[in-house]
Amino acid sequence: MPITERWLLPEGVGELLPAEAEQLECARRVLIDLFHSWGYELVVPPLIEYLESLLTGVGTDLELQTFKLTDQLTGRLMGVRADITPQVARIAAHRIKRKGIIRLCYIGSVLHTLPQGLGGARNPIQVGAELYGHGGIESDLEVLRLALEALESVGIKQAHLDLGHVGIFRDLVSQAGLSSEEEYILFDALQRKAQDEMDLILQNNGVSSKLRHMFTALTNLNGGSEVLAEAEQVLTGSGVEHALMTLKKVAVLADKYLPQVPIHFDLGELRGYRYHTGLVFAVYIPGRGQAVAQGGRYDDIGKVFGRAQPATGFSIDLKELVTLSSHTSASCRGIYAPWSEDPAFEQEVARLRQQGEQVVYGFPGIANDFEELDCNRELVLEKGQWQVTEIRKRRRG
Amino acid sequence: MPITERWLLPEGVGELLPAEAEQLECARRVLIDLFHSWGYELVVPPLIEYLESLLTGVGTDLELQTFKLTDQLTGRLMGVRADITPQVARIAAHRIKRKGIIRLCYIGSVLHTLPQGLGGARNPIQVGAELYGHGGIESDLEVLRLALEALESVGIKQAHLDLGHVGIFRDLVSQAGLSSEEEYILFDALQRKAQDEMDLILQNNGVSSKLRHMFTALTNLNGGSEVLAEAEQVLTGSGVEHALMTLKKVAVLADKYLPQVPIHFDLGELRGYRYHTGLVFAVYIPGRGQAVAQGGRYDDIGKVFGRAQPATGFSIDLKELVTLSSHTSASCRGIYAPWSEDPAFEQEVARLRQQGEQVVYGFPGIANDFEELDCNRELVLEKGQWQVTEIRKRRRG
Repeated sequence: MPITERWLLPEGVGELLPAEAEQLECARRVLIDLFHSWGYELVVPPLIEYLESLLTGVGTDLELQTFKLTDQLTGRLMGVRADITPQVARIAAHRIKRKGIIRLCYIGSVLHTLPQGLGGARNPIQVGAELYGHGGIESDLEVLRLALEALESVGIKQAHLDLGHVGIFRDLVSQAGLSSEEEYILFDALQRKAQDEMDLILQNNGVSSKLRHMFTALTNLNGGSEVLAEAEQVLTGSGVEHALMTLKKVAVLADKYLPQVPIHFDLGELRGYRYHTGLVFAVYIPGRGQAVAQGGRYDDIGKVFGRAQPATGFSIDLKELVTLSSHTSASCRGIYAPWSEDPAFEQEVARLRQQGEQVVYGFPGIANDFEELDCNRELVLEKGQWQVTEIRKRRRG
Repeated sequence: MPITERWLLPEGVGELLPAEAEQLECARRVLIDLFHSWGYELVVPPLIEYLESLLTGVGTDLELQTFKLTDQLTGRLMGVRADITPQVARIAAHRIKRKGIIRLCYIGSVLHTLPQGLGGARNPIQVGAELYGHGGIESDLEVLRLALEALESVGIKQAHLDLGHVGIFRDLVSQAGLSSEEEYILFDALQRKAQDEMDLILQNNGVSSKLRHMFTALTNLNGGSEVLAEAEQVLTGSGVEHALMTLKKVAVLADKYLPQVPIHFDLGELRGYRYHTGLVFAVYIPGRGQAVAQGGRYDDIGKVFGRAQPATGFSIDLKELVTLSSHTSASCRGIYAPWSEDPAFEQEVARLRQQGEQVVYGFPGIANDFEELDCNRELVLEKGQWQVTEIRKRRRG
């Protein structure tokens, strides 16, 4: 690698320079404080774990996204996390010694082997909140509201909400008696809304025409709240009544608690299918194809860690968010403190810093560019007193 | 892997549960704010880079510590960073478009293939600050002072300082005309203070007895400030005068600016040898063998990125620090808000949260354990008004 290229980063791997990094830090604090104010406790899961722990109860897409490493101490395979939610589920199942409801939040880097979508990042910063121990619609509503409040708190406006329920597809699959491989092929066809292909797969598996019709109907069941009434008719007698009822109830609550947020239903969109089991949601903003937040219910995930409990939560790619956010950080310009060994100078510098000022030392013999150091004031000795004054233009002329 | 073991983490891989995670978050904010008040700007380098970029200008120990990954897009080798300093040096050399002095700080996870030392962690959280563009002792002093202030700000007391200068060993090596392989073997022997072994290696390379004597003397040159005088005598005429003079000047400044910090000199301890070139330091606290902070000058590192500039800085393992810190976070106990769909209830909840209170929703039909939810107050409707009251004992009896 020639010197001129050593500073190039791999495709889809990004870093944040000071202005963006400051925005990220700011958003991070706002979000963690918000989660805390709702009772969510911060946890810090590790970057790597044994592969079996990272990939329990999750689909193959996450496995493909996970970088593998060999543990030099044991020879066993470890993975770099591609998602933090399964780690938090493990913590809730095993590390938190508490019977009732558990609320946890997290923030951290994840790695993906390949970029997701066009221009996608391989090193997102995932932030999210998870609620364990409650299976009712009230906790679905809580995480939904918290997700929207989180986005709003970092300056994301005009959010609209997509609601779905992966239980509908799961219930139909279970009735059709499909193997997990066939389920995956069907799932793939549904994601592409390929009705003919779906019908063929189902026919080959001897699925009744009534059930086949229900499956293919999922591709069209998207739109406003009229979709729910339509679904009730089309899917009648299919055993998905419970899932539909949940969706309906959550929709009513969402209308009540989030009256300003437009809601869109999509019963064929199974975005969170890798471990979700119930209500799923995604938040979109105008002019952007990818969701800015997504989440939902995943009641089964704790089972593999020996403690099955209801679970629901959401996550956000914070690095992505920072570039979208309309928040602009007020440039807090500093005070230039030219080199001095006078103890009174040090006292004044310490005092200013404690007041929240940024004080940047100058070094002897260096011609400082105050603008580059982002200083608009300087510390000068006037009549035996160290004082902050505006930097005079003449210094730059 | 049986269910009962899926939650086990690999050896040397740790995670933080709520109490520690909160402490970490608190320390993180204190440190970033401190760095900002000194003019250090935050950057967020990526977890992975091409191996050539991560390992430029650094010794083999860092290479051994670095997990390797194959980039599925290009087939090239990437590494998970084992150290953030070289990344920040790359950013300073290439991404910051500024000629003068550059101050940067960072915080993030790093991974090591093997634990460092007994009970060492493989996933530390590294936090640090780096100063580029100034080669004088004033910047050495600045990072030294900042490191000690950083430790103090998170509750680390009774720090003592170890000072050394890797330029002395480097200068002697260059005079002895050793190859880099021989240099490494000698370096290894010096770290173990194996005088006889060192002498043998040097004899085999035809090094003069005068120079051999200087090399082996390094193993004994440690102690109080008398070491510097002794070194001047022993190493006279060796070409290390400049390095010794720097050490002396910094010692005088450290005495002046950090009068409360005991200083120890060790000219044979080359802890930062992997990329350091000048003054190196480490901060220790009583009862702990490993340094809590370390740093020093590494003027050459930017060269491989096409921009050589003086550099000095330090880093701290924040996860380690949190377990040592005497800070205890004041438990901020929450307000329990039993389920209600009354709009006035929601208004009161929102108001309390904005005031900085933690308000935790209850769900209908759930018998909540207030103590487990860490709530000592609850929101109750009294005379048509939602009010915060102490939780009465009777609820728990």
